[in-house]
Amino acid sequence: MDKLQKYVKLIINVGVNIQKGQKLLIRCPVDCAYFARMAMEEAYAAGADDVLIQWGDEKSSRINYLMAPDSNFGKELEWEKARIQYLVDQGYNMLGVLAADPEILKGVDPERITKDQKVMATTMKPLMEKVSSSAIQWTLASVPNPAWARKVFPNAKSDEEAIGLMWDAIYAASRVDGKDPVENWKTHIATMQKKVDALMAHNFKHLRFKNAAGTDLEITLPEGHLWVACGEEAATGYNFIANIPTEEVFTAPLRTGTNGIVYSTKPLVFMGDIIDEFWIKFKDGKVTEFGAKQNEHLLDKVINTHPNADYLGEVALVPHSSPISQSGILWYNTLYDENASCHLALGKAYPYTVKGAVGKSDDELNAMGVNQSLAHTDFMMGSADMSIVGVTYDGKEIAVFTGGEWAI
Amino acid sequence: MDKLQKYVKLIINVGVNIQKGQKLLIRCPVDCAYFARMAMEEAYAAGADDVLIQWGDEKSSRINYLMAPDSNFGKELEWEKARIQYLVDQGYNMLGVLAADPEILKGVDPERITKDQKVMATTMKPLMEKVSSSAIQWTLASVPNPAWARKVFPNAKSDEEAIGLMWDAIYAASRVDGKDPVENWKTHIATMQKKVDALMAHNFKHLRFKNAAGTDLEITLPEGHLWVACGEEAATGYNFIANIPTEEVFTAPLRTGTNGIVYSTKPLVFMGDIIDEFWIKFKDGKVTEFGAKQNEHLLDKVINTHPNADYLGEVALVPHSSPISQSGILWYNTLYDENASCHLALGKAYPYTVKGAVGKSDDELNAMGVNQSLAHTDFMMGSADMSIVGVTYDGKEIAVFTGGEWAI
Repeated sequence: MDKLQKYVKLIINVGVNIQKGQKLLIRCPVDCAYFARMAMEEAYAAGADDVLIQWGDEKSSRINYLMAPDSNFGKELEWEKARIQYLVDQGYNMLGVLAADPEILKGVDPERITKDQKVMATTMKPLMEKVSSSAIQWTLASVPNPAWARKVFPNAKSDEEAIGLMWDAIYAASRVDGKDPVENWKTHIATMQKKVDALMAHNFKHLRFKNAAGTDLEITLPEGHLWVACGEEAATGYNFIANIPTEEVFTAPLRTGTNGIVYSTKPLVFMGDIIDEFWIKFKDGKVTEFGAKQNEHLLDKVINTHPNADYLGEVALVPHSSPISQSGILWYNTLYDENASCHLALGKAYPYTVKGAVGKSDDELNAMGVNQSLAHTDFMMGSADMSIVGVTYDGKEIAVFTGGEWAI
Repeated sequence: MDKLQKYVKLIINVGVNIQKGQKLLIRCPVDCAYFARMAMEEAYAAGADDVLIQWGDEKSSRINYLMAPDSNFGKELEWEKARIQYLVDQGYNMLGVLAADPEILKGVDPERITKDQKVMATTMKPLMEKVSSSAIQWTLASVPNPAWARKVFPNAKSDEEAIGLMWDAIYAASRVDGKDPVENWKTHIATMQKKVDALMAHNFKHLRFKNAAGTDLEITLPEGHLWVACGEEAATGYNFIANIPTEEVFTAPLRTGTNGIVYSTKPLVFMGDIIDEFWIKFKDGKVTEFGAKQNEHLLDKVINTHPNADYLGEVALVPHSSPISQSGILWYNTLYDENASCHLALGKAYPYTVKGAVGKSDDELNAMGVNQSLAHTDFMMGSADMSIVGVTYDGKEIAVFTGGEWAI
């Protein structure tokens, strides 16, 4: 069996973990239709009852953004809402295939994108609630396309060579190698679960981050915070892994509990552009000052477009030795880059990372210190010399990371 | 400007003839997404107000047919009906991009296909009514894919070579050459309109077909029959050309007025298989006997699956010198092959080919001699030696075709 076939099996049988009699929605760009078809076959082979493919195409979206009249944006469609409700009512699980050109939105009027995102958020809400509450099994899988592959491997001599290199990198990052990837993942999940157990046992009040890049940050964690790693159980009773690869152990910061300064260690791709070498200062959770050597005005958009995007919603720990970090590749793709580095997210916190938070309103969540926002933007701040110290409620200091690696 | 770009312009500006402020739905297979994107750009350049793409994929449909459980077929979806109604209410015009593998349904359970076709017919009905009554502008355009191209050019050494040959054939058949294709089409439309005018002036009662292949057939035409060629005016007030290329001049036979025998002169592709060298006998319009050297059992399905598929619904005249006939290519695609040869269709007649028929119920149409059926299957019977004699109401015999060419 070739690696592509193994990767598809991993996505279907471990990622979304589809079971006999279940339904599956595959969201896939038209340019990697072959991948959707392979996933469909694999899902039926696993006993799926129904597999639907919903096609997308960012290239024609770009044409729309550039050429359609203004009246074309911000329209809510009733039949589209009915479609989403149907998928929810029928209990479709979901595989999202990602094959984005990191620069596809370059030069597009941000107003139009914002209008579309708002419509999308409203329309997709019932399905996204099932996703974010783990009511269904779901996963995201990346597939290379020429634009992404050549951005990551600018020295490749052809699209084909770049895509070949990209696939090799994806297989390595996803632990698809000579051995059975399903077994590889069982071991990996068990290892990460041990870190979760240790962090939960210490029940830290603060985490203190320091490195030579200049980061000097204290993050207070809310009471009842829950550390989460790969492998969640859905309300269906089956486990799934939302992202393959995944190397992160994460939780929510206390909304008002971050103080100090953090320096980015990798570029942030935002609306087709790159924000690089930036820093952010926090006081009582809120961003008070920031700067960037590249595209500071876009960092301003990240922080100031949506309410509460100037508070943190996620803190994630990733060892510097993770295979993705070791690849030395800048992926221009958050799902990969975030697994190469400790990171923070500006904006929304996931309610399932705080005890008793699931099901509460946005106002209630903000009041209890679980930040809610339309935005959720990850940025990387890990490094080979990152030190993280955990402070317990009785004041004990415990090394969590030393020299960029787990110390716990 | 390259020929592909010229072809796209022809499809948008002559085929569907999109106007400033109009909306366009493009139905397109995922494997030729580039074509949909070019058409979208061209439509916006022509002033379109909104261009929607609806993707299809016969390869994943095939996987569904082969692997999904029975419960998956014959489901009517309310949201899908709401989507179609929305397109109708908003007045979307339509471009259908065709890129079919002629053998994609080979080996699929015909029960499943029939179930799906019934659901499709019900779901699409409001839109198809707009199409068949020319309430909107619409056109169909073919794009080569490897399966089709290699079937047509089995000696090509690669997919690329076959697709290149196929494009050349499509450009030639569509009159996309060194000159302005839009001008070429104006001339062509005027020529065909002259044939329509001559046929209308004679108002024939019968047409008698004879050739050396063995065809000896008399077709009675209904009172008030209308001859139709390319270039219709939609209810929008704008002309459109439903098929590019088009070489046929056609009308409806009287349901009960066909007698004699007809021999096929080209293979008929049906459900992925080929029916070849067949003949059909008619008595008072109804098929009484038939035979085929290849796949006679499939010819039986053509004639006996749907009620009234054993009566004729179309008679079409195409000169043997048409560019498509001269290409010498067997296209395995009705939209092309039907323009290479005089042909008949078993099943549904188009109400707009008989005066006073539009808007009548199926029962009323059948009673007035305009055959109605779920099926409409074209088959080719023209030849280089085809003779067609028209008989007027006062018994005069006039040569319509001699030696396969227009004589009128």
